[in-house]
Amino acid sequence: MSTTREILDKALAEGRTALTAPEGRRICQEYGIATPGEGLATSADEAVRLAEELGFPVVMKIVSPDILHKTDAGGVLVGLKNAEEVASGYERILANASAYNPQVTVDGIQIQQLVSGGHEVIIGAVTDPTFGKIVAFGLGGVLVEVLKDVTFRLAPLSGDDALGMLDDIRAAEVLRGARGARPASRQALATMIERVGALVGDFPEITEVDLNPVFAGPDGAVAADVRILIGELPQEKARIPREKILEQMTRIFKPRSVAVIGASAEQGKIGNSVMRNLINGGYRGQIFPINPKATDIMGLPAYKSVADVPFDVDVAVFAIPAAFVPPALEQAGEKGVAGAIMIPSGFAETGNVEGQAEIVEIAARHGVRMLGPNIYGYYYTPENLCATFCTPYDVKGSVALTSQSGGIGMAILGFSRTTKMGVSAIVGVGNKADVDEDDLLTFFEQDDNTRAVAMHLEDLKDGRGFVEAARRVVRHKPVIVLKAGRTAMGARAAGSHTGALAGDDKVYDDILRQAGVVRAPGLNDMLEYARSLPLMPTPQGENVVIITGAGGSGVLLSDACVDAGLTLMDIPDDLDQAFRAYIPPFGAAGNPIDITGGEPPSTYENTVRLGLTDPRIHALVLGYWHTIVTPPMVFAELIAKVVQEERDKGNVKPVVASLAGDTEVEEACDYLFDHGVVAYPYTTEKPVAVLGAKYRWARAAGLL
Amino acid sequence: MSTTREILDKALAEGRTALTAPEGRRICQEYGIATPGEGLATSADEAVRLAEELGFPVVMKIVSPDILHKTDAGGVLVGLKNAEEVASGYERILANASAYNPQVTVDGIQIQQLVSGGHEVIIGAVTDPTFGKIVAFGLGGVLVEVLKDVTFRLAPLSGDDALGMLDDIRAAEVLRGARGARPASRQALATMIERVGALVGDFPEITEVDLNPVFAGPDGAVAADVRILIGELPQEKARIPREKILEQMTRIFKPRSVAVIGASAEQGKIGNSVMRNLINGGYRGQIFPINPKATDIMGLPAYKSVADVPFDVDVAVFAIPAAFVPPALEQAGEKGVAGAIMIPSGFAETGNVEGQAEIVEIAARHGVRMLGPNIYGYYYTPENLCATFCTPYDVKGSVALTSQSGGIGMAILGFSRTTKMGVSAIVGVGNKADVDEDDLLTFFEQDDNTRAVAMHLEDLKDGRGFVEAARRVVRHKPVIVLKAGRTAMGARAAGSHTGALAGDDKVYDDILRQAGVVRAPGLNDMLEYARSLPLMPTPQGENVVIITGAGGSGVLLSDACVDAGLTLMDIPDDLDQAFRAYIPPFGAAGNPIDITGGEPPSTYENTVRLGLTDPRIHALVLGYWHTIVTPPMVFAELIAKVVQEERDKGNVKPVVASLAGDTEVEEACDYLFDHGVVAYPYTTEKPVAVLGAKYRWARAAGLL
Repeated sequence: MSTTREILDKALAEGRTALTAPEGRRICQEYGIATPGEGLATSADEAVRLAEELGFPVVMKIVSPDILHKTDAGGVLVGLKNAEEVASGYERILANASAYNPQVTVDGIQIQQLVSGGHEVIIGAVTDPTFGKIVAFGLGGVLVEVLKDVTFRLAPLSGDDALGMLDDIRAAEVLRGARGARPASRQALATMIERVGALVGDFPEITEVDLNPVFAGPDGAVAADVRILIGELPQEKARIPREKILEQMTRIFKPRSVAVIGASAEQGKIGNSVMRNLINGGYRGQIFPINPKATDIMGLPAYKSVADVPFDVDVAVFAIPAAFVPPALEQAGEKGVAGAIMIPSGFAETGNVEGQAEIVEIAARHGVRMLGPNIYGYYYTPENLCATFCTPYDVKGSVALTSQSGGIGMAILGFSRTTKMGVSAIVGVGNKADVDEDDLLTFFEQDDNTRAVAMHLEDLKDGRGFVEAARRVVRHKPVIVLKAGRTAMGARAAGSHTGALAGDDKVYDDILRQAGVVRAPGLNDMLEYARSLPLMPTPQGENVVIITGAGGSGVLLSDACVDAGLTLMDIPDDLDQAFRAYIPPFGAAGNPIDITGGEPPSTYENTVRLGLTDPRIHALVLGYWHTIVTPPMVFAELIAKVVQEERDKGNVKPVVASLAGDTEVEEACDYLFDHGVVAYPYTTEKPVAVLGAKYRWARAAGLL
Repeated sequence: MSTTREILDKALAEGRTALTAPEGRRICQEYGIATPGEGLATSADEAVRLAEELGFPVVMKIVSPDILHKTDAGGVLVGLKNAEEVASGYERILANASAYNPQVTVDGIQIQQLVSGGHEVIIGAVTDPTFGKIVAFGLGGVLVEVLKDVTFRLAPLSGDDALGMLDDIRAAEVLRGARGARPASRQALATMIERVGALVGDFPEITEVDLNPVFAGPDGAVAADVRILIGELPQEKARIPREKILEQMTRIFKPRSVAVIGASAEQGKIGNSVMRNLINGGYRGQIFPINPKATDIMGLPAYKSVADVPFDVDVAVFAIPAAFVPPALEQAGEKGVAGAIMIPSGFAETGNVEGQAEIVEIAARHGVRMLGPNIYGYYYTPENLCATFCTPYDVKGSVALTSQSGGIGMAILGFSRTTKMGVSAIVGVGNKADVDEDDLLTFFEQDDNTRAVAMHLEDLKDGRGFVEAARRVVRHKPVIVLKAGRTAMGARAAGSHTGALAGDDKVYDDILRQAGVVRAPGLNDMLEYARSLPLMPTPQGENVVIITGAGGSGVLLSDACVDAGLTLMDIPDDLDQAFRAYIPPFGAAGNPIDITGGEPPSTYENTVRLGLTDPRIHALVLGYWHTIVTPPMVFAELIAKVVQEERDKGNVKPVVASLAGDTEVEEACDYLFDHGVVAYPYTTEKPVAVLGAKYRWARAAGLL
């Protein structure tokens, strides 16, 4: 690393933002990244001698600190085939450079072996505003430039992660040697990616690396062109140690006492709604209304200021206008409050950036963690805590949801209520001036009341911190993310190919996946995943079997399984025979297993029970068809019973159902949901999509 | 065409399934498809002379009726650069051929100009089992072989359709000259595609054409290799003239009388359910119960056989076991019945193919059109006709739905009832032994009670007939198709590149789009499109504007608009100023227009009214956020009123809404739907998806 250190120091000292090609090559050498044989010539004769050593054909490139875009300056000649061409090429490049810039300083002309053949790929690194250093990999040429077939990972990365990148592009097959071509060395490519990751990890002042093209054959890979951009060291993001976050968040989610700053007895005021929700929600800790003009509010003694409260205060909910927040927050800080729930709007979201900076500073100075500002508050059902101006919510369950937007928070609440979704927490994060998703993940990770986390987010303050937290949590419980702003590609000043390719959403998508997060494509998907994932046991393998009374549903369920990345089990003969024993001769075994439409409950029971007991099957997708022989509620009660009986016997598998029929199927779905079986009416897509989400998590958690 | 006729006749007479390269080239010449300069050499000397005339380098290829795969036989040499190489190449190919097949007959060796450079594309044609002759276009190499980036159209096709194919591949940009390459001549490529389409249209005995590769530059395109496969003339599908279909279908959908064969007074029997549904559904025509053992059923005189009915019978509903169907159908045919509604199962779907063929023959002989067998029946609400064993349905409206599967039919019924979706018809087509989607489209096209058609289908009996019918209908009303079995790629014996690429679903997808059909990705989407499309007026242009109270919804709605292929209007300055006048200073004009969360009804009213009146805006997407200042029902009533007032003034635009809030938003959505505004709770995706579907139709119908 000493060579690289030296080169960077020199270049930075000279105020440069780019390294020269020879500098780039020396860095590559230090990091074991192969580059073509080459040398620097300072005369035409030397150029010829070098070319003869390297072997023709060669490439000639000007080396000058004054020329960034060598091609534009006429400073590149490709494919020179003999001594004569090299000699005259030398003079030509010098003439072109002088014409381009009469003041040009030329260090010499690089003579490089012309590498070609094999597969042309691009390997690079870029500094992402959210995630910091990331590496990129794609196939060169049209595939990456027109089809944007490129994949990203956080840097540094392991060799296994790098190998995974090779399979993560759409045209992955090409590298394996499609169309009779020789395959590229996967090991050589993965090693090169890993080393680029190590380089930018070691030297944060490297802002972009572009190895483009890299030629990869069966025996190795060579970076034919190296481009390295440098800049200032990025600011380190301040991190609070995990144990400290946990202590803070635990006081916020399980407070012994809550003060309401701006508590009011007057209906319609936010400070009144918060008081009512705390009391009516059943919170059993102490509640301290704070209001300089009242002596008691809703039967509780009121205090002029939080300073006057004669007890410890864990949480202060702010229900006062933005202008009054700073002094009240100072008092809360002095009081030793752990969490400031900053409901008021009127901060950064309305352009009041200074006001927000001021309260962030006050909170930080006192070690107060602040949620918001500009939020609806938060719910934590295990403590019956509704610290919000919305309506109380009391259906306890095991999913924690967070939202960056108040509107989305209200949608979460409405959806929860109408589907009776059990939640552990609903949290608004608003402007995220302090507490963000990382902090919440750290709490939910160890919270036994939470078995899944679903987060709506528009951006991440600290992408790397999020990924670290998510990776830890995902090992134990699913993390679902709805990332809004998918299609608003961030405008980005691109100094390299890699930079131009790193559109916001593709980076988010790859890196969230790398973190093991289940990304929801839309709001409703996030809500359904949140509702269903905690109800489904973790599958023990990839074999999914469809059992359907409606052949038509079977076809659509198969489509949905393929879309969701599920594996329709190839049913072995003995199992096929076993299923056939229960279904009419014109039914179809195989997969889907079509038990046909007119069958009695016993046919559903026998086939579903077989599916649950045979250990080779790992998940069931049921297609129900409303008939008078097996009416909807008969089906629902039967399936709930069979699933429970088998779970009691240790046959614990996810079961999802699609119900096709008249409106009674809605009640049947509600019954099934209440009994732990995920079921939806009038859709073959949703039950399979949520099963697919469960599988995505189980794979990411290494459970499959 | 005489040359082609002659070549084909000769090859078919010889029992061949493939044409030789020179034959292929002569056909290309006749159709104006450029091929490289070439000639046939029967000696090494002649080969050298030809090569010198054409110019080096050349390609040499064996011409032999005994050798199909020339490369395998060592019969191809590429890039021969001089006379010596050509002379020795000649002998080498002959030696290889003899080694490959000692009995080989060699007609000579083709000497061909080596064409290269420009863009490599593939143009072909194949005989699809559903759609008949189709043409294919894709970029050569990795793009088409690994990424399957290829597009299909029915053959023959117009020049405009062919031009459209060039833009319909993912890598379309490449042809326009991405990465500094010279563009391909669009006209030359489109002409070549058009001519391949004409060729297979003119000569149905040509089963596959493969021009691969075609080299295309700025000045033209040359098919470097031509491969033509031939076979037997495909059977012409029998078609009933449109006027006749219309007459038949009109008697079926608007019957003056219905006979129920197998009518029963006994609850639980299908023949009883059908009788009850006809009577309780309110059908006002004559009903004739047919039952040899009864004198009257449900108060109506019963007849021993349909032959005994002393009146004309338009429709006979069959509610008897499969075994009894043939004689009863004979009687119905003799009686002059127009439609046989064949509810019974036990035909092809259970393997009883002969039984099905028998009833098809009987129906055809008598000119009876048969729906089914293996169906739930059909509904036509304008006539209060519920000819089904399911429950009656009476919410009249303007969408006609059909399903191939009974289960899906039941899902249609349940969904319709729970959403109060107004329908004109629900029709089961089951085994489609006779009446299929084409017949139904022909009726719905001219049916003033139907303004949109939604069809679930697993296959098409006559893809070309369907496309013709759909193209006609789509000009007046949307046709929505849920094609099940998307992901079950049909196994296909591939005799050419084009053949191997023509996977079932991609062909369906391209050709349904070409027909102007709106394809629904899943069951629930089909149902929602069916429910919403008739409620939305047709947009007059592409400019979509989002007005939202929740910034968070605005971001998600923008994502959804991009996903749905909608254009977020670039708001002109004066319009931006006009919106700004109504919203708080910290709100955001632009698009989405974020009116911010705490606004009163007047802000929604002012901005929505402006959106409806300004003629540059063509559709509105609303994002509502539940607040106490503007509660859900206040919002709903307000928007319904404003939309109606503006429609009355002639400002008729589609308006869709996403409501985020507590459960009251569900009632608000119901109210909005009842008042012609498409609105969904807890989802930002659905309202935009249905607007996107409306746009897809409007574009296909040429209305934009």
